[in-house]
Order: sequence, then structure tokens, then C-alpha cells
Amino acid sequence: MSEPSIDTIDFNLDLARQQIDEQLVRFTEFDADCPAQLREAIRYSLLSPGKRLRPLLVMMACEACGKDSKESLPAACAVEMIHTYSLIHDDLPSMDDDQLRRGQPTCHVKFDESTAILAGDALIPLAFQVVCSEYPPSIATPCSVELAQACGATRLVGGQVDDLAQESDQMGDLEKLEHIHRRKTGALLSVSLRLGAIVAAGSSKQIAALEIFGKNLGLAFQIVDDLLDCRGDWTKMGKMTNKDDGRGKLTYPNLMGVEQSESRAAGLVHDAVESLADFGSRAEPLRNLAKYVLERTH
Amino acid sequence: MSEPSIDTIDFNLDLARQQIDEQLVRFTEFDADCPAQLREAIRYSLLSPGKRLRPLLVMMACEACGKDSKESLPAACAVEMIHTYSLIHDDLPSMDDDQLRRGQPTCHVKFDESTAILAGDALIPLAFQVVCSEYPPSIATPCSVELAQACGATRLVGGQVDDLAQESDQMGDLEKLEHIHRRKTGALLSVSLRLGAIVAAGSSKQIAALEIFGKNLGLAFQIVDDLLDCRGDWTKMGKMTNKDDGRGKLTYPNLMGVEQSESRAAGLVHDAVESLADFGSRAEPLRNLAKYVLERTH
Repeated sequence: MSEPSIDTIDFNLDLARQQIDEQLVRFTEFDADCPAQLREAIRYSLLSPGKRLRPLLVMMACEACGKDSKESLPAACAVEMIHTYSLIHDDLPSMDDDQLRRGQPTCHVKFDESTAILAGDALIPLAFQVVCSEYPPSIATPCSVELAQACGATRLVGGQVDDLAQESDQMGDLEKLEHIHRRKTGALLSVSLRLGAIVAAGSSKQIAALEIFGKNLGLAFQIVDDLLDCRGDWTKMGKMTNKDDGRGKLTYPNLMGVEQSESRAAGLVHDAVESLADFGSRAEPLRNLAKYVLERTH
Repeated sequence: MSEPSIDTIDFNLDLARQQIDEQLVRFTEFDADCPAQLREAIRYSLLSPGKRLRPLLVMMACEACGKDSKESLPAACAVEMIHTYSLIHDDLPSMDDDQLRRGQPTCHVKFDESTAILAGDALIPLAFQVVCSEYPPSIATPCSVELAQACGATRLVGGQVDDLAQESDQMGDLEKLEHIHRRKTGALLSVSLRLGAIVAAGSSKQIAALEIFGKNLGLAFQIVDDLLDCRGDWTKMGKMTNKDDGRGKLTYPNLMGVEQSESRAAGLVHDAVESLADFGSRAEPLRNLAKYVLERTH
């Protein structure tokens, strides 16, 4: 409701992350009917140190549309819950079979497989519970619909199914890769911006601009991720093989080479920043974030 | 909105199941971004022949509170989606490791483990999407909160974690067994009744009565299930061992014997029926359903 002054538009990332983490702790207190091991597994994954990129996008989009970013904290936490569930399940033995996540044992390694599956299962309804408990119905309902679509069979989950399937498919091309990433990574980034805008009662023009921003940012983010994976292994192993590569996964550097991947990412970030032209200084945090994504490549 | 005549109160179970199945088909049409295998897995599990007990409870509770049961179809389908996801995940190798469900291969056997996990994952947000898309915000929001609580860390998922844990725990007693079932089975039965009442704008007195009905019915249902499991294996194997028993699970017949289990179930159904005294003829379908649960033991 309150209009932030120009000072608060100079978005404090550390403060925002602290606010997000405080709320994530609050939303995962649970009563005694939650088994201790389940609570521990949920918190282990949800509260592990991370960039909190998606909740920050929610908050920055809210700020860009004219509301204090704090009002978007419940929506921001909901998106982080969905993101965390998807990481827990993606890491499972029957999926990507990852042992480490952010340098720590993955949830099924730290606990066990059934606990990891169930921790993810519990995070999904929790996201909707938070949105529907913390906002008035007129905001909660559209936010829930957006969030449900973003993590449903045609987006997040559909992207993961296709991502797993293409590991054994030699027909992969750029179009296919982008189709997967648009859903697997892009859907949650995009809905983050939309939720922030809905909480701030943004105009449809604002939402459309944020949509373009999110689409470009999401793809740039994925290309940079592929580049970092590939570079990291260059340094370590002295040759261009990496985990994704080794398992036959499509990546941008593999498909279009490192240099063209870099210039594609730069072009996407440029377009993302351009899409926010009408927002003025309120969108500066979003612009800075987009540039930061690119800087990770250097 | 429309008041059904006395004729329609004579609830037609077959018609209701047909209405439920039609809506479940409609809600799982998905667009082309849903991979074919995922769509097939979701529908395989969701549309497999079943009693549709939970959605019927939603519809009957709606009818009992004075609205046409058809208005509760989206909420009814949402509960069935959550129920189906929980069955798919409970059957997984790392959980109950079941090969058959309702006489058909379980989802991970028919497809594969990752597809089964992801089919379940997609059903959870779909339930919230249906509720939030099909009802006005003033109904959608409380329904979503109720549904999220029922399938969250303190209820459905918490009950499953404790159910898995007690397999290796010799300290089990009746209190513990009921604590598990109240959450694992009872939570969804109870929320079914609550959602039907919310859709029908039932009074808090009506909701409280339905709550008692649901609590008693849920426990009776579980006892009867245990009895049937135990009897089925008597017939087949000529001795009182069964799958649950063999894996060290607590069951009512194991804890209190067959006869006492039967009389406990009968007492609970009696109490369930009593709790609906103020509803008049509109609650007759619910009373009949409760009696039917008991008849399964004979």
C-alpha cells in the first residue's frame, strides 16, 4: 500500500535475502504433527544458502510496479518453495541422480529417498497455503492459478520430463533445447515476475513488459549456466567435458560454441533491459540483476 | 445456486461417478507442451476405475448443506487428484514398493519411476489450479487453504512419513496407529467433507457436524480396510499373514483382534450417522455411504 521513497528503490539485496529467509523459517515451523525428520529435510533444502534469485525477482517486480517489495514476501517464499521441491526431486536417483547441491549432500543423500520425495511433496501445497493464507482472495486466487500453471504438467514438470527423455535422444537441436528450458527454468522465473506484479496490482502493460524481461532473462540465465558448467570443468579437467556433456545432454556451448553462446546471452540481457524502458528508476534493481547474470560469465 | 428437489436428493452414485470422471478427463486434457508420456501416466492413474469415495463425499456434503452437488465437482476432482498423487508416490519402490494397484500395474511399473514421481508432482498443482480457476475467489481461497493443509507436512505427508517409519519400530500401539491414520487417510476424507460444505456455504455448525462424521468414518474405513486385507489373505493363503502384517505394519486386527475391530468399526459408523442428525433427508446419501463402509466387512 505504501509508496516507497526513491531511497528504498536502491534495492538492498542482502536485506531482501534476510527478509526472505526469515519468512521461510516462519512458514516451516509446523506443529507437532509434522514428523521431526520431515521438518528437518524440508528446512535442510529450503534454507540452504542460495542466491534466492526467484524470490528476489518477485520482490523486484513488485517494487517496479510501485509497491513496497515487502508486500510480495509471501509470494516470493511460495516460488522458492516450488523451486526447492523441484531441485529435491530432480536430484533423485531416478532422475539426475545428483549427490551434491550447492556443495552439500542432496536431500536424498542426507536423509533417504522416501523422505526426499515426501519433503518435496510437502513443499508444493505449502506454497499454495502461504499464498492463500497471506493475501486477500482477490490476489491469492490469480497468484495460485499462475503458480499452479508454472509448476504443472505443461511447464516445470513437462520440461523436466522432456529433459530426462532427451538424454537418450540424438535428434536434439536448438529449438528443442529452448523448448525444454523455457518450461523447466523459464516458467518459474517468468511466474516470479508475474506474481510480483499481481501483488502490486501492476497494469497489463507492465505485466507484458515483465514477461518479455523474464523470457529473455531466463534464457540468458540458462546459457550462462551451461557456460559456467563447461568452463568449470575446463579448469578442473583440462578438457571440454562436463557432467551434462558426458551424459549426452544438450547444452548451448555444445550446440553453438562458447563464443556464440556468450554473444547470444549478451544479446538476451540487452533485450531484457530494453523491455523495462517504461518503468523508470523503479526497475533499476531488475536491470542490475539482468546485468549481473551476464557478469557471471566473465 | 439452484435448490435441488427432493428427487435429486436420492443421490445417484453411478451418475455422480460419471460426472466426476467426465470432469477429470476435461481437467487433464493439457496442451501440446505436456509430454505425451506424462499426460498418459497422469490419466492412467487418475482415471483408473475406483470407488471415487473422496469426491463422492465432497458432493454429498455439498448436497447435505443445501446446494446441488454438481457445484462441488471441481473441488471433488481436486481431492481425487491429491488422492491419486498420494497413491502414485506411496507405491514407489522407496516407499511401499507396490507392483499392483486396483489389479493394474502401478504407475512406476507401467511407465518408469521418474515418470511416476513427476506425474504425482503435476497432480498437486493441478488440484489447486482447478479450485482456483473454477470458483470465485471467496470460495477458491478457503478451499485451497483447507486442501493444502490436508495434504501438507502435518497431515497427509506427515502421516506417510510416520507410517513408513513405524515399519521398523516395535513400539507401535493403538494411539500411534490412530495418529497415523488420522493424518494419512483421515485428512483427505475430512477435507472432502469440508470442501463440499464450503462450496455450499454451509454454516459453521454444519461444518463441525461433518467434521465429526468424517473423523469417525475415516477411522471406520481404515479398520475395515485392515480387516479386508487380513481376510483376503486368509482366504488366499489359509493363514493369518498379509502383506502389511508381513512387513511388520501395525493393523487393527493385529492390535485388537478381528472381533473387536469389527465392533469398533460398527461403533464408529453409528457415531458418524448420529452426528448428522440435524441435517434431515439431505444427508441421507452420507448416512448410506457410512453404512456401506461397514457392509464391506460382511
